[in-house]
Amino acid sequence: MSKSIKLAILGLGTVGTGVVNLINDNLDELKRRSGRDIVITEVGIRRQRDDIDPNIIQNSDLMATAASDNVDIVIELIGGTTLAKDVVMHAIKNGKHVVTANKALLAEHGNEIFAFAEQHNVHVAYEAAVAGGIPIIKVMREGLAANKIDWLAGIINGTGNFIMTEMRDKGRPFADVLSEAQALGYAEADPTFDVEGIDAAHKLALLASIAFGIPLQFDKVYCEGITGITLQDVNYAEELGYRIKHLGFAVRRAGNGSGDDSAGIELRVHPTLIPQNALLANVNGVKNAVLVNSHPLGQTLYCGDGAGAGATASAVMADVMDLVRVLGCKDADQQNSNGHHVPHLAFIPEKLSDTPILRAEQMITGYYLRVHAYDSPGVLADITRILSDAGINIDAILQKPAHKLGQVPVIILTLPVVESQMNLAIEKIEKLDTITDKVVRIRLDELA
Amino acid sequence: MSKSIKLAILGLGTVGTGVVNLINDNLDELKRRSGRDIVITEVGIRRQRDDIDPNIIQNSDLMATAASDNVDIVIELIGGTTLAKDVVMHAIKNGKHVVTANKALLAEHGNEIFAFAEQHNVHVAYEAAVAGGIPIIKVMREGLAANKIDWLAGIINGTGNFIMTEMRDKGRPFADVLSEAQALGYAEADPTFDVEGIDAAHKLALLASIAFGIPLQFDKVYCEGITGITLQDVNYAEELGYRIKHLGFAVRRAGNGSGDDSAGIELRVHPTLIPQNALLANVNGVKNAVLVNSHPLGQTLYCGDGAGAGATASAVMADVMDLVRVLGCKDADQQNSNGHHVPHLAFIPEKLSDTPILRAEQMITGYYLRVHAYDSPGVLADITRILSDAGINIDAILQKPAHKLGQVPVIILTLPVVESQMNLAIEKIEKLDTITDKVVRIRLDELA
Repeated sequence: MSKSIKLAILGLGTVGTGVVNLINDNLDELKRRSGRDIVITEVGIRRQRDDIDPNIIQNSDLMATAASDNVDIVIELIGGTTLAKDVVMHAIKNGKHVVTANKALLAEHGNEIFAFAEQHNVHVAYEAAVAGGIPIIKVMREGLAANKIDWLAGIINGTGNFIMTEMRDKGRPFADVLSEAQALGYAEADPTFDVEGIDAAHKLALLASIAFGIPLQFDKVYCEGITGITLQDVNYAEELGYRIKHLGFAVRRAGNGSGDDSAGIELRVHPTLIPQNALLANVNGVKNAVLVNSHPLGQTLYCGDGAGAGATASAVMADVMDLVRVLGCKDADQQNSNGHHVPHLAFIPEKLSDTPILRAEQMITGYYLRVHAYDSPGVLADITRILSDAGINIDAILQKPAHKLGQVPVIILTLPVVESQMNLAIEKIEKLDTITDKVVRIRLDELA
Repeated sequence: MSKSIKLAILGLGTVGTGVVNLINDNLDELKRRSGRDIVITEVGIRRQRDDIDPNIIQNSDLMATAASDNVDIVIELIGGTTLAKDVVMHAIKNGKHVVTANKALLAEHGNEIFAFAEQHNVHVAYEAAVAGGIPIIKVMREGLAANKIDWLAGIINGTGNFIMTEMRDKGRPFADVLSEAQALGYAEADPTFDVEGIDAAHKLALLASIAFGIPLQFDKVYCEGITGITLQDVNYAEELGYRIKHLGFAVRRAGNGSGDDSAGIELRVHPTLIPQNALLANVNGVKNAVLVNSHPLGQTLYCGDGAGAGATASAVMADVMDLVRVLGCKDADQQNSNGHHVPHLAFIPEKLSDTPILRAEQMITGYYLRVHAYDSPGVLADITRILSDAGINIDAILQKPAHKLGQVPVIILTLPVVESQMNLAIEKIEKLDTITDKVVRIRLDELA
């Protein structure tokens, strides 16, 4: 057997421990697949621990571990975007390949990190950064490499999906389910990153780059959380044959012609009504799934655990197994020549495109509208006339009987419309005398 | 841009034409991803055609094209296991990398072909051979490379899935749907390969090898078709919360201890009741899907089009894109050293395992039984006693009212049991005086 591959793990929390356990459990399989021995030589942790194999060096100086001669691959699992960035850049500078599960780090600093890695002839692998154990980065960068990707839609935050699933299945309100998710350890004490969609936006930025060959542009992701979703809307959606999921979308829009500013890419995270019978609508609990529509393949779906020690360790070690093959190349030039490795963002750096990211007002989606009105004759006529004047096509209407307060919720599903048009229409609807409340709007996608 | 990658396509039927179209449609994306130009230099076809780009050499001598100096990668799309084998072996001998969509060829001759490829330092890539456009070979060989795979279950024949879907959705009998599938071009005039599960068995043999690191053993796949499935069973299954799908299973059994011959691998294709709410049960029409259960990742599902020109071309060209990177390596040794390429069967050849394939009688599954009996008191007691004596646990019973002939169908769902035990029990049940007909048995799996 050839020489061992030496790993350093920075950070030994849940995921780091998962990686250690995976190597212990599956070492035989790893060797049978790679033909190499794989050993953890060093761990970077703040405080010494006595439950660690004495053959492994424990180092509280993470920068030193990142540069250690005793290490081929540095696995960054400390999280955050400050120290993590420093150690990753330091590892790259010292010629180490890097594996990271850190979506925030890459979404915010990936362009800089990947360029630095190219410069130093090393790879930064990040399968674990998106959708946990689902090998979606490999699928999109390699498995779908011959396709032109039109759009993708993903459940890429397990906490959000758990909450949406429980609300529908058990008829429990948002706040109630969130508390349970926190108790179960699915959601953080501060759940903002999950329920406001920031975590999903990080992952979407990465997926969009490798789908379309564009630089990372996390700051341009339109992001809407699920805190405003009520049981009422969940139930109306079901009644109409839809289910509300918190999805990230990356969509390529061809526009209407040359010089047209409607051409570009939509990057958006928001609650979405999707057809009940779509597989994506039936991905429940903390599971993640990504649906990719590409030419000529059509739709493919990838589903699995998006978080947790085992799933994340699986992705981290899949990256290590890829790097083991790279390390089999004799000279450094071979390890990183353009003809040879999968580009960090799927497309070779000099061919990344400057396709613009569309503004929210330019985005095109269908809509679910819930309008509350006094039960006066003519209100439905007023609303539908406003929509029709704005060129918005109605796909379905559900008018429930007046409830005890004398208000009638009217539910309207529309065909896809440019957001700016919808904004204008809603403004007009809300000015009608018969309308008693703000219009509730949730996007809708047929996934067709 | 570095030198062009030169492709030869052998066979220009539906899939071959799909590959040509893909390259025409997506050449810009292919170049942006690979940094290389990709050109078809030669096609091997029996008769000259005038609808082909005049820059492409047309050669009716396929063996010559397979060995042409004008070619880096040979794409075999002629099908069958005779000429296809000759041209693949000839291409390998002449140092060409090969891409093939030919599941029958690899399932039956893959061990020989892969060994010959290793010997000649070239790769034989076969993403398109299993589940069409779903990148399941890449997912299992690379994406899940750090996992120990416990079992997989797949809908890996689109025709069969179309038939099972239509029977359930429309309440149409098997023969009726088969005729439609033939009219739609989903099923061949001779549908044996599809409906008897042989096509699925070819694919299962490939999946099992890369899951467990065992040689290809197509001849040991237990194979049962869907021709005997009736609407009656489809409906009873639904009533009990299950759906019947035609599935391929590869399952690793640990056995009960050392020297125990129950340890081994189950390879089986058969109709199976699975829970209605499982995602796999909701993969409809001609779609394929593979569910993989592995440690530590858990269950992941991969779904998409399993056939058709676009899906197959997508997989063929994904292989080409991988080989483009291999061809970026300067010397031949680098292209194929163990430390460097993904082994053909996921595990390095000298580490393939001789784990035995279990015989049908050793396999363990749950069962759906439909028993017809005269409506005499005590018949249910007799049946349940026989099952209980054989150590078979009943999970559910459904006894429908006696119909006009005075017979009562009793439906019994059992927990998993060794097949030989079930055979004995059924033999005893069929000997009861009160039993009027053969017991109908369909396997059942909770996919847990």
